[in-house]
Amino acid sequence: MARRRTGVWLIGAKGGVATTVIVGLVALRKGLAGDPGLVTQLPLFQDLDLFSWKDVVIGGHEIRTATLYEEAMKLHRESRAIDDQLIARCKAELDRIDRNIVPGTLLNVGGTIEKFADEPLRKRVETPREALERIQADLRNFREANQLDSLVVINVASTEPPCDESQLPARWKDLEKLLDKPARKCPLPASSLYAIAALDMAVPFVNFTPSLGSGPTAICELALERGVCHMGHDGKTGETLMKSVLAPMFAARNLPVMSWVGHNIFGNMDGKVLDDPANKRTKVRSKDRLLHQILGYSPQTLVSIEYIESLGDWKTAWDHIHFKGFLGTPMVLTFTWQGCDSLLAAPLVIDLARLVEFAARRRETGLLTFLSSFFKSPLGTTEHNFVRQFQALEEWVERQRADG
Amino acid sequence: MARRRTGVWLIGAKGGVATTVIVGLVALRKGLAGDPGLVTQLPLFQDLDLFSWKDVVIGGHEIRTATLYEEAMKLHRESRAIDDQLIARCKAELDRIDRNIVPGTLLNVGGTIEKFADEPLRKRVETPREALERIQADLRNFREANQLDSLVVINVASTEPPCDESQLPARWKDLEKLLDKPARKCPLPASSLYAIAALDMAVPFVNFTPSLGSGPTAICELALERGVCHMGHDGKTGETLMKSVLAPMFAARNLPVMSWVGHNIFGNMDGKVLDDPANKRTKVRSKDRLLHQILGYSPQTLVSIEYIESLGDWKTAWDHIHFKGFLGTPMVLTFTWQGCDSLLAAPLVIDLARLVEFAARRRETGLLTFLSSFFKSPLGTTEHNFVRQFQALEEWVERQRADG
Amino acid sequence: MARRRTGVWLIGAKGGVATTVIVGLVALRKGLAGDPGLVTQLPLFQDLDLFSWKDVVIGGHEIRTATLYEEAMKLHRESRAIDDQLIARCKAELDRIDRNIVPGTLLNVGGTIEKFADEPLRKRVETPREALERIQADLRNFREANQLDSLVVINVASTEPPCDESQLPARWKDLEKLLDKPARKCPLPASSLYAIAALDMAVPFVNFTPSLGSGPTAICELALERGVCHMGHDGKTGETLMKSVLAPMFAARNLPVMSWVGHNIFGNMDGKVLDDPANKRTKVRSKDRLLHQILGYSPQTLVSIEYIESLGDWKTAWDHIHFKGFLGTPMVLTFTWQGCDSLLAAPLVIDLARLVEFAARRRETGLLTFLSSFFKSPLGTTEHNFVRQFQALEEWVERQRADG
Amino acid sequence: MARRRTGVWLIGAKGGVATTVIVGLVALRKGLAGDPGLVTQLPLFQDLDLFSWKDVVIGGHEIRTATLYEEAMKLHRESRAIDDQLIARCKAELDRIDRNIVPGTLLNVGGTIEKFADEPLRKRVETPREALERIQADLRNFREANQLDSLVVINVASTEPPCDESQLPARWKDLEKLLDKPARKCPLPASSLYAIAALDMAVPFVNFTPSLGSGPTAICELALERGVCHMGHDGKTGETLMKSVLAPMFAARNLPVMSWVGHNIFGNMDGKVLDDPANKRTKVRSKDRLLHQILGYSPQTLVSIEYIESLGDWKTAWDHIHFKGFLGTPMVLTFTWQGCDSLLAAPLVIDLARLVEFAARRRETGLLTFLSSFFKSPLGTTEHNFVRQFQALEEWVERQRADG
Repeated sequence: MARRRTGVWLIGAKGGVATTVIVGLVALRKGLAGDPGLVTQLPLFQDLDLFSWKDVVIGGHEIRTATLYEEAMKLHRESRAIDDQLIARCKAELDRIDRNIVPGTLLNVGGTIEKFADEPLRKRVETPREALERIQADLRNFREANQLDSLVVINVASTEPPCDESQLPARWKDLEKLLDKPARKCPLPASSLYAIAALDMAVPFVNFTPSLGSGPTAICELALERGVCHMGHDGKTGETLMKSVLAPMFAARNLPVMSWVGHNIFGNMDGKVLDDPANKRTKVRSKDRLLHQILGYSPQTLVSIEYIESLGDWKTAWDHIHFKGFLGTPMVLTFTWQGCDSLLAAPLVIDLARLVEFAARRRETGLLTFLSSFFKSPLGTTEHNFVRQFQALEEWVERQRADG
Repeated sequence: MARRRTGVWLIGAKGGVATTVIVGLVALRKGLAGDPGLVTQLPLFQDLDLFSWKDVVIGGHEIRTATLYEEAMKLHRESRAIDDQLIARCKAELDRIDRNIVPGTLLNVGGTIEKFADEPLRKRVETPREALERIQADLRNFREANQLDSLVVINVASTEPPCDESQLPARWKDLEKLLDKPARKCPLPASSLYAIAALDMAVPFVNFTPSLGSGPTAICELALERGVCHMGHDGKTGETLMKSVLAPMFAARNLPVMSWVGHNIFGNMDGKVLDDPANKRTKVRSKDRLLHQILGYSPQTLVSIEYIESLGDWKTAWDHIHFKGFLGTPMVLTFTWQGCDSLLAAPLVIDLARLVEFAARRRETGLLTFLSSFFKSPLGTTEHNFVRQFQALEEWVERQRADG
Repeated sequence: MARRRTGVWLIGAKGGVATTVIVGLVALRKGLAGDPGLVTQLPLFQDLDLFSWKDVVIGGHEIRTATLYEEAMKLHRESRAIDDQLIARCKAELDRIDRNIVPGTLLNVGGTIEKFADEPLRKRVETPREALERIQADLRNFREANQLDSLVVINVASTEPPCDESQLPARWKDLEKLLDKPARKCPLPASSLYAIAALDMAVPFVNFTPSLGSGPTAICELALERGVCHMGHDGKTGETLMKSVLAPMFAARNLPVMSWVGHNIFGNMDGKVLDDPANKRTKVRSKDRLLHQILGYSPQTLVSIEYIESLGDWKTAWDHIHFKGFLGTPMVLTFTWQGCDSLLAAPLVIDLARLVEFAARRRETGLLTFLSSFFKSPLGTTEHNFVRQFQALEEWVERQRADG
Repeated sequence: MARRRTGVWLIGAKGGVATTVIVGLVALRKGLAGDPGLVTQLPLFQDLDLFSWKDVVIGGHEIRTATLYEEAMKLHRESRAIDDQLIARCKAELDRIDRNIVPGTLLNVGGTIEKFADEPLRKRVETPREALERIQADLRNFREANQLDSLVVINVASTEPPCDESQLPARWKDLEKLLDKPARKCPLPASSLYAIAALDMAVPFVNFTPSLGSGPTAICELALERGVCHMGHDGKTGETLMKSVLAPMFAARNLPVMSWVGHNIFGNMDGKVLDDPANKRTKVRSKDRLLHQILGYSPQTLVSIEYIESLGDWKTAWDHIHFKGFLGTPMVLTFTWQGCDSLLAAPLVIDLARLVEFAARRRETGLLTFLSSFFKSPLGTTEHNFVRQFQALEEWVERQRADG
C-alpha cells in the first residue's frame, strides 16, 4: 500500500500544547514514546485506517519568535513536563519543523495575546481579507511543497476574548462581506479567520480552544457548501472531564448537587493569557455550561482560574461538590486533579487529527458530533455525559467498520 | 384502583441501614421526607406502577435486642445522621414496627457478629433445616397477619466471613441435603439460609451485603425452579460507586492507571464487624474486583477499611489514583468522599424493594441483571461501568413501558 | 468570696458569632456544655481568678430585628451547627437577654451591611457625636441596671469596608473633632465609634473583626489617657491559624514557599457581607499579611473568599502550598479545613472576655499584646508564629501567678 | 585559616538518602545546588564555624553492590527526584567516592534487608566482636588515608526489625560481653554495632533511622565514658513533622482530637523493607508516640505505611484529623503531603553532620538534645512540639556565639 502523506497544521504552533504535539509526533515516529493518553491507540480503533506516525508532516502559524526546541526545553525546565533526553533526541527534527512555521494573524486576539507577538507582526496592517488570503497561501504552499494527500488544520492557540456571536450575520454570504472591512470594524477573531481559510479550501478544521473558531452558523454553512467537515470546541482535558463523568453519577443517583465549586491554578502561558479577565470569561463560560445540561437544574457554581507562576504547566484543580443525601443530610465530595496541561491536551489533538483526517477521507461533512467526548462545549450536540459521548464515538467506529 | 399491600422484610432489621430504611419509609409516608437519594423517584420511573409509600408494611429478622426508636436516636446522637425531630415524629410508627421484628439466625455469621447477639439466640440449638423452617414460618405469619399482596426479602445484615463457594454443591438437590446436617457441619452462612427461605416460598430476595446470600449456583437453580427473581450483591454506595464512574474515564482516555489506593474509615457497627479480618476480607474482595474488569488490566491496588470510632456512620474514603500521561509523565487524581453510610444505602434499598417487587409482579425470574448499577459485585454480569449499568436499567424501564 | 458581676457587651449581638457566644455562655452556666474550644479552660489558667459562667451578664448592640432564639435555631437548621435540644433548653434565658440588646449605629458600615439593618435605624440621622453619646448611655444603663463590677465590650459585627487609616489624625485631640462633623464627612467607621465609646468610659475593648476598631494611633492614645486596655484585631480561627503554625515550619526547615493559594468558601451572613468586594478587601488583607512576616520574603499568594450558600456556617478552606525542596525539586502540601465558623470563633470571644476583664482588674493599660495568638493581625506586635504567640500568653500567666 | 578536613561516614551509603546526601554535597561543592532544605544555611547559623562543602570527604558502609551514579540515576528515572544533568556533572566525583564505600554488616538486620545484600556478605561468618573490629578498622583507614581532622558517622540504612531494648543489660561492661557470643545469640542489631564502633573510637554518631542505634542505656554510658557526643533517632521529614506542628495547635486551642488517621504510601526501597511487618512495626511506633506527649491524652490513632511501587521516592501522606469543637460539634482537618523522601531527608543529614561535628569540636558529650527538632523520637527529651524544639536549637546557637 502506497504511503499517504498527511499534513497537520497547527494554529499557535509553538505554544505549550502544539510543542508537545510536535515533540510527541516526532517521538512516536522514532519509537521513543508509547501509547498513554492516545485514545486512537485503543484496541477499538485498530481496524481503522488512521494515518500512521511516519506519514505526518507538520506545519503551522505562530505569532511569537521562538524555536520548538527552546519551547520544549522550557516545558522541561519550568514544569518537569517532558524529559530532556527525549527532547535532545528529537532536536534535529524539531529544527526542521521550525521552518514550516510561519507568522499568523493578530486579528481581534485581544491586548494580552498581542503583547506576546513579534514586533513586525504587531505592526503589520492588513484587512481581514488580506490576512485570509495570506493564510490560504501558506496552507497551499505547505500542501504543495510536501506533496500532501490530505491536510487538517487545528487551532491550539491561546484563548481569545469572548466575541458576541449574536452580532454576526447568520448567512455566509453576509459574513463574507465583513472580511473586506478594515480590521477594527470586523468583529471576527483570528480563530474564525483560520477556520474560514481552511474550510473555504475544503480543508477540515478543528477548534481545540474556547475561542470562536468555526462555531458561527455562517461558518458552518460555509463548511457544508464546501463539503468539508469540522468540529469544536475547547478540548476536555481535566476538571471538565471529571465533571462530565461525576455529574451523571449524581443525576442517576438522584443526589441533588447544592453547590459545585472548582478552583484551577496553573502557571503556563495559557494561564497568563487567562489572567486577563476578558480572555478568562470565554473559558469559564465553557467550563460551567455542562452541569446544567447533565443535571437538569442549576446548582450554585463557581469556577476560578488563577495564574500561579510556580506551577508551570501543572494544572491543579480542586473541586468541592456539596450534595444532599437521603433525609436531606448534606454530604461532600472533593477531588484534586494534578495533571500537566500540555500533556493532557496533546494526545487528544493527535487523536482529533487522525479521526478528522479519516472522516474527511470518508467524505463526512459538517460538524463531527461523534467527537463530542473530546470537547468541553461540543458543537451540534447537547450531550455532555462522557460515557454517552464515548458511546457515540464507538458507534461511529462500528459504522466505519461495517462500511469497510 | 384497589390498594396492593406490599411487605418489605429486612434481614438485620435494626442495623443502621435498616433503621434508616424504616425511618425513611415512615417519613416518606408522612410527607416528612423528600426525594433525594431515591433513584425510583427520578422522572424516568414515573410511569411505572411501583408500590407507593402508603402501601408498605415492614417486618424483619434481627439478632440484637433494641428498639428502632433507640437505634434511630443513636444515629442522631453519634453521627448527626438523622434529625431528632424527624425521629420523634415517627416514634409511634417505629414502636409499632418493632413488633414485626423477630429473632434471626446466627448460622455461620462468625464470632464477631455472634458477640452482638442476644443471649437466648446465642444459646439456641437448631439444625439449618429447623432454622429455615422457623424463618419461613415468620415470613408466612407476616404475610398472613398483614394480608399482603406481595413480599420482598432484603438482606442488610452485617458482613459475614467469606465462605468458600467452590465447596458447595452446584445443584440444588445436593445443596438441600446439607440443611439436615448439624449447624457446624453445614458450610452455608445465615445470608444463604434467608435466601433459600425466601426463594423456596417464591418470595423475591435481594442481597444488599457482600455476604454469600443467593449467589451460589445451586440457589440460583432453586430460584429458577420456583419461578422467582433475585439479585445481589453488595450495595454500591460510595467509594466503589466512584470507581465505577472514574475507571471508565481512564480506560476511554487510554490513561494507564499505575496504582489505585483507597482508604476507608468509619465508625458504625458495620465498621466494628469489618474490624475482624475475616469479615473484612469478604468486603475488600468485593470492592476491588471491578477495576480489572473495567480497565482490562490490573494496576496495583490497595483497599483498606478501618474502624475509627469518632466518625460514627460517616464513611470517609480517600482515594489516590496514580496514572501515566502522554510521554510517560505521571499524574495524580485524589478524591475524598464524606458520606453518611446508612443514608447512602437506605434509599437504594427502598429502590430495590420497589423494582424487585414490580419485576416479580411482571413474572421476571432468576437474576435481575438490569439492577447491576446498584451493586458492587452484580451477579450475572461483568459490566461495572456505572453509566452502562444505568443504561441497562433505562432500557428495562423502556421495555416495561412498551409492555404496558 | 463575694460574687463579682461581669458584663459582656457584644457589638453585632445577634450575628452568628455573638449568638453562639451567648448560647455557649448560657449552656456553660447550666452545665450543658463542656470545655472544647475554650482556651481559658486549659490547666494553664486554673489558678487565675477569671470570671465564672454564673457571674456573666450579657448585652449588646445590633442593627437587625431578630430574636436570639430564632438566630440560634437558624444555625441549627441551616448549618447543623448547634443542637436544637440545647437551644430549646436555653430559650428562656435567650429571651431574657434579647431585652438587653439595643440598636447600634450604621456609621460607615457600607451599603451591604446597611441593607440588613432595620428600617428605623437606616432612617435615623445623628452626628457621630450623638451616636457616641447614645452608645455610652446604653453602656451606662446596662452597667447600672445590672450592678456590674466590671464590663468588657467586644466587636463581633460584620466586616466593614476598608478605611484609609493614613487619612486619620494621629492625635486623639484632633480625631475627636471629627465626631462633631456630619456623619458623611467623618471617615470613622462604626467599629471605631464603639471603641471610642468604651475606651472613653475606661471600659476595655476587643475588636474580634478585621474592621478598624481601636487600631488607629489616636484611639490607642485615648486608651492610654483613660488608663484602660484593649486589643485586636480579627480573630484567628481557621485558615490563618493554620498558616501561623505551618509557615514557621517552612521557615525553620529552610524550605522556600513558592506559592501559597488559599480558597475559602462558606455561606453565613459574614459570607454575604464579604461578597461585597469592598468588605472583602479588608478581610483578605488581614489574612495575607502574616506570611511575609513569618517567612521573611513574599511568595506568590492568593486568598479567595467566596459565598457558597449551601455551606451555611461551615467554612471550608483549601490551601495549596508549593514549596521547593533540596536540589530545587518542587513539592506540595495541601490541606482542607472544615470547621463551623461561629463555633470556632465563639469560645475565643469568651476567652478574650475573661482575659481582658482580668487584665483590666490588674490595671493593665494600652494594647494587650500577650493576646496576639487570638488574632490574625495582632496590634502592637509583628509576631505571627502561633507557638511563640502562645508562649507570650503563657509567660503573662506566669507573671500574674507570681504577682499573686 | 587552615582547612580542616572533615569525614562524613554514612551507614547505608548507597541507599536513597545517602545517595542524595552525596550527590547534594558534591553539587554544593561545585556550586550546582542552592540552600533549599538546608537548615544550617539559615541566617541563624551564619556566625557558626560549621564545616564548608569543600572540606568534606565522604565514605561509608553498604551491603549491596551498586554504584552511586547508577543509584542516583535510578532516583531520576523512577522518581523524577534528581535532575539527570546534575547527576551527569557529578559523575566523576561519585565514581571516586564509590571507592570509599566498603561492605557493612548484616547482624540482626532481618530477612528482608538480608535479601538485598551481596552474596559474599550474606555468607560471611563473624562474631559481633569481629564485625566491630572490622568496622573500626574501616573507619581508621578512612581517617588516615584522608588525613581527616574530624569524623562523623551517620546511620541512614534501612529500618531493622524492632529489638526488645529491655532485654539488653543496662551497663556497658555487661553489654560488651555480648559481643563475643556468636551472632545468633547476640540481640544487638547492626545499627547498634555501628554506634558502638564509632563511639568507642570517640567518633560522634547520629542515628537518622528508627533502628536501635545508640539508644540503649549501656551505649549512652559508653559515649559518656569516651567523652563523645551522639543523637537520634529517626529523622523527622514529613508526616511526623506535620504532626509536631499541628498537634500543638490543637492542644493550645483546647480542641480535643478524637481521632488522627495517617496513611503513607510510597515506593522506594525503604518502602519495600517496611512492607515486612516486622520492620514496619519499628517505624509506626516511632511515628505515633508524639501525639500523646503533645496532647496529654491519647486519641484513637492509625498509622499505615504501604508500598506502592509506582510512587518511587515520592511519599504521599494523607492525614485525617477529627476534632471536637465548641458545644461538641465535630470538625475535620485533612492534609496531603507530597514530598520526595530522599530529598527531604538528605539536607537534614547534612545539617546533622555539620552540627554534630561542630558540637564534638566544642567538646559536647552525651546526647545532643538541642537537635530534637530533627528527630521523630528524639533521645533524652520528651519535647515534641516542633517550634519549642527549634527554640532549643536557637538557644544552643546563641550560647555557642556567646562562647565565641
